[in-house]
Amino acid sequence: MSQTTKGKVHTILHPELGFTKWDKIVNGFIIILICLNVIVVILETVPSLHLYHPYFIVFDTVSVIIFTIEYLLRLWSSSYDPKYSHKVHGRLKYMFSMYALIDLVAILPFYIHEIYSLDLRLLVMLRLLRFLRLFRLTAYMKSARIVRSVFVGRANELKLSLVLILFLIVIAGCTVYFVEHPAQPTVFSSIPAALWWAVITVTSVGYGDMVPITAAGKIITSLISLIGLAIFALPAGIITAGFLDEMKKSKVPDANLCPHCGKPVNKTGII
Amino acid sequence: MSQTTKGKVHTILHPELGFTKWDKIVNGFIIILICLNVIVVILETVPSLHLYHPYFIVFDTVSVIIFTIEYLLRLWSSSYDPKYSHKVHGRLKYMFSMYALIDLVAILPFYIHEIYSLDLRLLVMLRLLRFLRLFRLTAYMKSARIVRSVFVGRANELKLSLVLILFLIVIAGCTVYFVEHPAQPTVFSSIPAALWWAVITVTSVGYGDMVPITAAGKIITSLISLIGLAIFALPAGIITAGFLDEMKKSKVPDANLCPHCGKPVNKTGII
Amino acid sequence: MSQTTKGKVHTILHPELGFTKWDKIVNGFIIILICLNVIVVILETVPSLHLYHPYFIVFDTVSVIIFTIEYLLRLWSSSYDPKYSHKVHGRLKYMFSMYALIDLVAILPFYIHEIYSLDLRLLVMLRLLRFLRLFRLTAYMKSARIVRSVFVGRANELKLSLVLILFLIVIAGCTVYFVEHPAQPTVFSSIPAALWWAVITVTSVGYGDMVPITAAGKIITSLISLIGLAIFALPAGIITAGFLDEMKKSKVPDANLCPHCGKPVNKTGII
Amino acid sequence: MSQTTKGKVHTILHPELGFTKWDKIVNGFIIILICLNVIVVILETVPSLHLYHPYFIVFDTVSVIIFTIEYLLRLWSSSYDPKYSHKVHGRLKYMFSMYALIDLVAILPFYIHEIYSLDLRLLVMLRLLRFLRLFRLTAYMKSARIVRSVFVGRANELKLSLVLILFLIVIAGCTVYFVEHPAQPTVFSSIPAALWWAVITVTSVGYGDMVPITAAGKIITSLISLIGLAIFALPAGIITAGFLDEMKKSKVPDANLCPHCGKPVNKTGII
Repeated sequence: MSQTTKGKVHTILHPELGFTKWDKIVNGFIIILICLNVIVVILETVPSLHLYHPYFIVFDTVSVIIFTIEYLLRLWSSSYDPKYSHKVHGRLKYMFSMYALIDLVAILPFYIHEIYSLDLRLLVMLRLLRFLRLFRLTAYMKSARIVRSVFVGRANELKLSLVLILFLIVIAGCTVYFVEHPAQPTVFSSIPAALWWAVITVTSVGYGDMVPITAAGKIITSLISLIGLAIFALPAGIITAGFLDEMKKSKVPDANLCPHCGKPVNKTGII
Repeated sequence: MSQTTKGKVHTILHPELGFTKWDKIVNGFIIILICLNVIVVILETVPSLHLYHPYFIVFDTVSVIIFTIEYLLRLWSSSYDPKYSHKVHGRLKYMFSMYALIDLVAILPFYIHEIYSLDLRLLVMLRLLRFLRLFRLTAYMKSARIVRSVFVGRANELKLSLVLILFLIVIAGCTVYFVEHPAQPTVFSSIPAALWWAVITVTSVGYGDMVPITAAGKIITSLISLIGLAIFALPAGIITAGFLDEMKKSKVPDANLCPHCGKPVNKTGII
Repeated sequence: MSQTTKGKVHTILHPELGFTKWDKIVNGFIIILICLNVIVVILETVPSLHLYHPYFIVFDTVSVIIFTIEYLLRLWSSSYDPKYSHKVHGRLKYMFSMYALIDLVAILPFYIHEIYSLDLRLLVMLRLLRFLRLFRLTAYMKSARIVRSVFVGRANELKLSLVLILFLIVIAGCTVYFVEHPAQPTVFSSIPAALWWAVITVTSVGYGDMVPITAAGKIITSLISLIGLAIFALPAGIITAGFLDEMKKSKVPDANLCPHCGKPVNKTGII
Repeated sequence: MSQTTKGKVHTILHPELGFTKWDKIVNGFIIILICLNVIVVILETVPSLHLYHPYFIVFDTVSVIIFTIEYLLRLWSSSYDPKYSHKVHGRLKYMFSMYALIDLVAILPFYIHEIYSLDLRLLVMLRLLRFLRLFRLTAYMKSARIVRSVFVGRANELKLSLVLILFLIVIAGCTVYFVEHPAQPTVFSSIPAALWWAVITVTSVGYGDMVPITAAGKIITSLISLIGLAIFALPAGIITAGFLDEMKKSKVPDANLCPHCGKPVNKTGII
């Protein structure tokens, strides 16, 4: 096969590089196939749909074959990319790149299951990781980069809020355990149980499977849920402030020069 | 009838154009009628009010007649608007405009019900769509435009957060299913059931109809509800940042003048 | 009594005017008395504390007498204020000022109860309104003004979000009623019941007293709770943006003049 | 022992001062020991792990001995710090510094338990307070300072929101008590019980242990949970605005120069 065919295959499988019609069709088809795969895994577990089980197996087999062909094509055409140009080393290097590993992980469980009869259905969920590839598309590139840089740029503040939240949960769980355990020994049976209750309360999920009944427990819970709301406002505020900052950065021109006289209007561009 | 009558009718039915007293009265009356209609539909379903059913039917009939007259008047006077000036084509064009279709949809179910005896009470809710007209009033124009441009301008970031939220829900549902299904086969009966649980947990609604009982399930749930709060802070931050941006835009003077030469520096006024 | 005594009484009862030691003591005492009053009303309803009922009545009587004396002193000394300087008209005018009415409302229920034996205990809660007076203290003046101007300045946007939230609740309630009523006729018995469920779900309270069980109901609920979180991010964003604006405003000097050369640095002071 | 040894010990125990390898190892070891201590206290309460109780006691004893040695070393080396240089007075002064008191409080309960057989296991949680020391590390210094100055700088606004939230809770609890008590005398048994319900509803935890059943109660609850969300947006907005302000401050250059004369315009750099 000529280098041109390899180049075409490479371009079709990497929609972020070319802008032809075929790469969109091929990639759209693969994305839809992944979605259908996930839906099939979800539906397989519904008892009333067990009679369709044979069809599900056929669909799974067909889609794994398609994914395998796609994987082999990617591997073969990877040497077109200058980064992986070496015949053997380049392809090995490609095989251990993140996206190639995800692709492999998405098909391997099927073959393991066939050979060793291990039930690894859960791993089909790993096919969802293939969606990460989507964020390499230009349309989402900028948004994904902003979201990532917000979380990375505010990592210290977010870690601090996480520590505060964990503190609140541990303190809430322990104090309520000591207060509620004598009153409800089977419900608040241990501190780990009380910690579970604390997480569900502080995040305001509130299942209602564990509810304090003593006056002291209720007062502590009231305080904790109010403090919890204040502490959870912290990461929200940090993320919002981070967004504003990132947006400003991506808008600021390299230098704030007056286009008429050429002099800088202000140096920082923040003011 | 003279053109003047048509013009008057047109102005009265379009309060965003004129500022006479009558258009406010007529439109206020129609808004109150829609509200009463919705309230009647809501009250009709209360078992203890079934004895008032005949009155409800009379009210419904009367209001549909009023809406029909209003619709016909709008259709007739539409040719006053230069956009729909043609006698036949203009009116047909008006009939297929969004607001005219909403008006039609608000009265059609009644006639279909009368002729075919189909129970379409749910469609009465479509009359609520007529409230959209309210946002064309000048008082709300600016606010509605800001809200819309926030959602439109940040569409990519919001879509990204939606994808992250869906990821979290699917991963949460699947892992908790595989952990909790053996312990509670009737509660976590299938992945769709677990997905329902995941949505209710991640949004922090927490009905308590499905609660994990295994240690692994509780640890996963704790992690997921904490991650959920961080991910939900994302759209909140995006919307807040968008608001600030939109407000800044609407406030900035027409031109930012360079303090050195007095000429405009940049047109957007963001710097 | 001399004018000086009246002036002193007036100053002591209006801590926002003078900065003497006595006005702080008198007002602190009245604030503590109101707090104790509210606590007594709360404790009176606890069955296990019914034996202390006579003490509660004594405390209530004593505090009403103190409030009455305070009210009469305020009324008498009101003529010291130039606004209410007229002997009769001034005092009548003062009696109908907001704070004076609140003071009257705080003591009147007691006398009505004594004379007509009407149980108006709930009205004791109106004494809480007297706390509004606190916000006239200089320490909270600025904060209270900022909070109020945020809500007033963004009224249109907030009203719009409220309309969107009400729309979501009505649409959620109606659709889930039509889906769930056949499956759970006693739980989702009517649209008003479904609206109650919708409010509790959309606000993410999630009591769990009404939970959809049909597949359609669960899908609709999932969509609604996700949309709900997005819509509730709206008022949060509006309020945050409003705060930032108000804070900026309160910081901006009257004119941004360079203190050295006297020329304006920028006109709007926003940039 | 020479002054140098004391200096070395002091530096090793204060990782925020020196940047040697040993201080990181020693402090990392102490942090891990504290974490293990907390985990042991948590696991001690799990009934199925009671057979490991002797091991837990051994671990607790060993770690208290290590903490005691550390405390004594800190006390001995404290005189190296010029602040506590005096032989006796300096050490006494150090003993009553916040961090030293926390260290003492972390070990004292063990000895009290040994001597007086008082069960003070809860106080082991006080060892968590030792984590506060972490925030003195340079990596978190800036973040911690920003978070603190947000809460301190907005104290008045946050207090005001707290007052509004407490008002809402008291008013919600009282009105719902008067409405629901006749319908559910055992559930809404007293106003304190109704206040507990109000906190759990307003914070959107919603356990479902107390749910209004009357129409009036449901309408009031709906209003309150909607108002609650608006009021809770207040502190979130305040904190976000505060963050933005603090970040701006830490970014602004030392002086804002006037573009006309080149001299600094204002010192704070806020404009």
